[in-house]
Amino acid sequence: MSTYNTAFTSDNIAGVSPQVLEAMARCNNGQADPYGRDECSKQAEQMLSDVFEKDVSVFFVTTGTAANCLSLSALTPPWGAVLCHHDGHINHDECGAPEFFNSGARVLTLDGADSKIDPEALKWGVRHRVGDMHSSQPASVSLTQATETGTIYSVDEILRIGAITKNSGLRMHMDGARFANALVALGCSPAEMTWRCGVDMLSFGATKNGTMSAEAIIVFDKTLAHEMAFRVKRSGQLGSKMRFMAAQMLGYLENDLWLKNARQANAMAAMLKNGLEKISQISIIGSPQANIIFCNMPQYCIDRLLEQGFSFYHDRWEPGVVRFVTSFATTEQDIQHFLSAVHQAASFAKAV
Amino acid sequence: MSTYNTAFTSDNIAGVSPQVLEAMARCNNGQADPYGRDECSKQAEQMLSDVFEKDVSVFFVTTGTAANCLSLSALTPPWGAVLCHHDGHINHDECGAPEFFNSGARVLTLDGADSKIDPEALKWGVRHRVGDMHSSQPASVSLTQATETGTIYSVDEILRIGAITKNSGLRMHMDGARFANALVALGCSPAEMTWRCGVDMLSFGATKNGTMSAEAIIVFDKTLAHEMAFRVKRSGQLGSKMRFMAAQMLGYLENDLWLKNARQANAMAAMLKNGLEKISQISIIGSPQANIIFCNMPQYCIDRLLEQGFSFYHDRWEPGVVRFVTSFATTEQDIQHFLSAVHQAASFAKAV
Amino acid sequence: MSTYNTAFTSDNIAGVSPQVLEAMARCNNGQADPYGRDECSKQAEQMLSDVFEKDVSVFFVTTGTAANCLSLSALTPPWGAVLCHHDGHINHDECGAPEFFNSGARVLTLDGADSKIDPEALKWGVRHRVGDMHSSQPASVSLTQATETGTIYSVDEILRIGAITKNSGLRMHMDGARFANALVALGCSPAEMTWRCGVDMLSFGATKNGTMSAEAIIVFDKTLAHEMAFRVKRSGQLGSKMRFMAAQMLGYLENDLWLKNARQANAMAAMLKNGLEKISQISIIGSPQANIIFCNMPQYCIDRLLEQGFSFYHDRWEPGVVRFVTSFATTEQDIQHFLSAVHQAASFAKAV
Amino acid sequence: MSTYNTAFTSDNIAGVSPQVLEAMARCNNGQADPYGRDECSKQAEQMLSDVFEKDVSVFFVTTGTAANCLSLSALTPPWGAVLCHHDGHINHDECGAPEFFNSGARVLTLDGADSKIDPEALKWGVRHRVGDMHSSQPASVSLTQATETGTIYSVDEILRIGAITKNSGLRMHMDGARFANALVALGCSPAEMTWRCGVDMLSFGATKNGTMSAEAIIVFDKTLAHEMAFRVKRSGQLGSKMRFMAAQMLGYLENDLWLKNARQANAMAAMLKNGLEKISQISIIGSPQANIIFCNMPQYCIDRLLEQGFSFYHDRWEPGVVRFVTSFATTEQDIQHFLSAVHQAASFAKAV
Repeated sequence: MSTYNTAFTSDNIAGVSPQVLEAMARCNNGQADPYGRDECSKQAEQMLSDVFEKDVSVFFVTTGTAANCLSLSALTPPWGAVLCHHDGHINHDECGAPEFFNSGARVLTLDGADSKIDPEALKWGVRHRVGDMHSSQPASVSLTQATETGTIYSVDEILRIGAITKNSGLRMHMDGARFANALVALGCSPAEMTWRCGVDMLSFGATKNGTMSAEAIIVFDKTLAHEMAFRVKRSGQLGSKMRFMAAQMLGYLENDLWLKNARQANAMAAMLKNGLEKISQISIIGSPQANIIFCNMPQYCIDRLLEQGFSFYHDRWEPGVVRFVTSFATTEQDIQHFLSAVHQAASFAKAV
Repeated sequence: MSTYNTAFTSDNIAGVSPQVLEAMARCNNGQADPYGRDECSKQAEQMLSDVFEKDVSVFFVTTGTAANCLSLSALTPPWGAVLCHHDGHINHDECGAPEFFNSGARVLTLDGADSKIDPEALKWGVRHRVGDMHSSQPASVSLTQATETGTIYSVDEILRIGAITKNSGLRMHMDGARFANALVALGCSPAEMTWRCGVDMLSFGATKNGTMSAEAIIVFDKTLAHEMAFRVKRSGQLGSKMRFMAAQMLGYLENDLWLKNARQANAMAAMLKNGLEKISQISIIGSPQANIIFCNMPQYCIDRLLEQGFSFYHDRWEPGVVRFVTSFATTEQDIQHFLSAVHQAASFAKAV
Repeated sequence: MSTYNTAFTSDNIAGVSPQVLEAMARCNNGQADPYGRDECSKQAEQMLSDVFEKDVSVFFVTTGTAANCLSLSALTPPWGAVLCHHDGHINHDECGAPEFFNSGARVLTLDGADSKIDPEALKWGVRHRVGDMHSSQPASVSLTQATETGTIYSVDEILRIGAITKNSGLRMHMDGARFANALVALGCSPAEMTWRCGVDMLSFGATKNGTMSAEAIIVFDKTLAHEMAFRVKRSGQLGSKMRFMAAQMLGYLENDLWLKNARQANAMAAMLKNGLEKISQISIIGSPQANIIFCNMPQYCIDRLLEQGFSFYHDRWEPGVVRFVTSFATTEQDIQHFLSAVHQAASFAKAV
Repeated sequence: MSTYNTAFTSDNIAGVSPQVLEAMARCNNGQADPYGRDECSKQAEQMLSDVFEKDVSVFFVTTGTAANCLSLSALTPPWGAVLCHHDGHINHDECGAPEFFNSGARVLTLDGADSKIDPEALKWGVRHRVGDMHSSQPASVSLTQATETGTIYSVDEILRIGAITKNSGLRMHMDGARFANALVALGCSPAEMTWRCGVDMLSFGATKNGTMSAEAIIVFDKTLAHEMAFRVKRSGQLGSKMRFMAAQMLGYLENDLWLKNARQANAMAAMLKNGLEKISQISIIGSPQANIIFCNMPQYCIDRLLEQGFSFYHDRWEPGVVRFVTSFATTEQDIQHFLSAVHQAASFAKAV
């Protein structure tokens, strides 16, 4: 049974799917070539090629920061600018990593509803001071799918972003920290959501959705693969016992675990959202589609829940705005238990 | 039974100690705070403080490249030089990572027998163009223990290096990719081999000796810990599910697994060395003390062993020079089997 | 007599004050030690110490970009953020140079009326995510005096900025590309406008106000001087024949040329402003105090002036917004001639 | 008449050719577009195109460090290595600037007699660990003409270096800090010595040979010009009043001043060499061909000359090794006066 201290702070507080641990144990079998030259790594690369219906190059790294910044460093020259939404993780939460990995390339932020880049804003962005040597030159576009606030670009929306990006000669990156959550919500294929829209490189997140520390950089434009090998090494991301990174990915992909996990996380978020919507003191913000929900909640209600040992982010935005994130490990019981506590906390005030 | 394809290319081709995998499975237990704020991480930090008899700060990273370069970036300003032996891994095998992590700081190489920095060379190095703004300024010394060729600094030798380093106002780093192998060979305490000699930061290698992908940066001078947190993050090394890194370290340290593993690797190297010394066509190079052996071997003998499926590095140095590396996973059978093959290969030529 | 093609695009289109050229010719006298060890350089450093009533260290560089970015690199660690006004030159017009010079440190922009940092915004900025390793840490504040839109911080305003900055443990930089213009407008002393308010380093601009290519980094906190020498060298700014940089500065400072030049530029801007204010179709934007004027002008008027060969920036902001910059070389005749043309252009429309 | 304190430390202690100062004064004529869009800059670019018999792009920078490092940053990716002679200025005297400008690219040094890259060493260098992701990849070759020790590559030698470089797919840079000295010594054309041998970019030094602070990056492969504009800006080298840089170059090139200056410097070095060769206690080192002479001199002789106020480098190499550098400003009287002093100093010992 779920206890009081269920946390909804992030999907990175969950553990690892048992199947992933098993895959790691399975590959712990004798000697294997290091640095990705082992059979597991080749198998994982092949499996990802199958998933994406394209012969891709794959680089395993241990964090989303590394996946994003290494990708962007190959898509953007040092005098270039990466265009992203103002809410982008690469804009807010990397402690200058994109600039560090790329010798000072800048992030140029764009607006747009629901944390999604507005195509009109993008049209402005791709032309921003082009040719003016006093300004970083638009070089790449990075969009987050699902976004940092739990919304999802439709395939048509990505296609449109891609068309503007490619017609302007820019490169395209997707931050897929929650790629699977978006994929199952849209019901499209991985190919439809990425390279068929013009995505050159993808940060294929897996850690939040069931692995331990395995993110994959998927290189759709294989002309970039050569330099990526060196970039990965010199950034300290070329693990010697790479087979265990690959094994995580194998466990994640086999038997559609990744899709099942994402569906569970999304379903739990939907269940939570439905429950919250029924509480008059609470209002959902925006249109969450994946496993992140933002809502407005009275302060007394927030306080009451925190006192009870629930955890969630509540003081990072406007007063009263809270965020809940579910994961593959979230259960129906967790949600029921939490919703019941929210009900109580919300009604508590009336009594006061 | 060992098969023909036993490889001696490196200790990074071994798998993971079962105890480490078990520790990882054990900590896969419900939710945990991310980014090192979990109980496992605190416990591992405490355990390392106990091991080093000092209150240390610990940062887990996934590769030796990251451990070395992050450490050196905190000990060396961008206009500084890192002094190391010409054979140093940071000099030869990082694809420019030390310079990348530190905005162009340079590596200044020194000579010395047995891949160990000669104190006289160091005395020259610490004064090299000091105050001359046209030259990178000596700022830190990095020594590898055990060295890249399998030799080991005695505690007295480290003390002497430390005295010269500290008297000149420089900082001191130890690349301990094979720290445990050196430790058990010397039979001293971790403290004696590090901070008591002046070491400010240590790359505490564990991956080659039994973990999956966990190296620890040990910060003895805690005034450096604050900036390290940000450096780790912005280099893409701050893993979210950090508990699994910490768990690897716990499994590695518990019940002295790390010392047992290192003793096994060293013993197997000694056994191999003894066997090779008895073969007249082969001569050991230098005085290997840890788990790496270099020797001269006739080319027909090399060829014969390769044909049989044995693996080892043989074409990276002068003709006829080969390297064998053992690990915690190497068994007596592996060595016996291989020695018997070497005997045959060596005598084979006579028949020809 | 002024001809039609008088330009008001920037103060960097003016030539060099004859006194500056003369000082350069004067120091072209036999051999001199290179890299700033010559007599001219020592004399210029002493003269600047006198001007600032403090024993300062001086580094001559050739551009404002170099002066700003080198200063900020010494005041901000790579994981730090430089706080500046959104209109700041370092934010808009350096093509990523601040990030390049400082290994990825970020610029965090603040709001405020008249292009001046609002103290309340600064109070927020200095606390922005302090201690959060996912975010660049507030480390320095850079204010531009006079600002990019021709306004000027009063001494009291700088004092307040300085107090907030220093109380929070941050460092303080002043971008003085138009330092002299601000100084003569305020009528205070250089010391009052800088280090007495907490400024640690100043980009002392001179090129726009009469020199050829000499900007001085004034280091008030001399503990920073040592590292600056190396930073200057490794950024390619350590000129061998430094005496000619120093000579420019001597010519600039001698006989208060710098103050006279700035007064002329300011007076010409005031004259232009007064004239424009009398034209009903035109409205001055903000409260220009130095040598830059922004105003709204009808498009037909803009077009007419451009046709006549006048130059000024007119298509970089909202439609109808134009900028005029005067310099030490601008004459009363230039202004009269231009005002007369503006009158004609403005009235032209009525006839149409 | 020359006085005792004539210095031979470097050619950067000379002043500026009067013709260069005059050209600067001449272009100080009213307003001019900034950042190289002025007529002077266009004229200088055209003049350099004529000199090199090729349509080149030109970027004026203020130091050799900037010229070299900016060039190399366009020819070498961050994971690349620049191959140069061990004696190269970029190896010894840039305080890490090449690594800073290029995000950690490394310098790989080669041997060769007379400070010239040995073609056999180069053949090894261009293949050095190609494809090995643990090592910086050979990407460009930089040769210094004339070399740091006063020797000169023949055109045939450069052709051979160029062939090896280009056949291996690497890029080629020439550090021409003393380009003119080499050119007049060889008696070939600028084209023969550069792009006809495969040179992609040239640091065309002028400061040591008569200008004040003007070095030109000559881009022979114009596909590199676009990115160079941004690289120059973001490194703080885009001067606003660029016309004065261009004017220096015009004054330098007009009436073959640059060739005359170089001939004078070379002739004075030859005169000095001839004189020194006649003194039995002194022996010339190597085969100086330009304006730098290294020789062995007894310590008592060195001491005596220093006492008399002569300056030259004498304690940077083996004991007894001294360096003399002449410049365009060195006169026959300077040499006669100095030689007479050397004679006296050398014979002085006998008396003692």
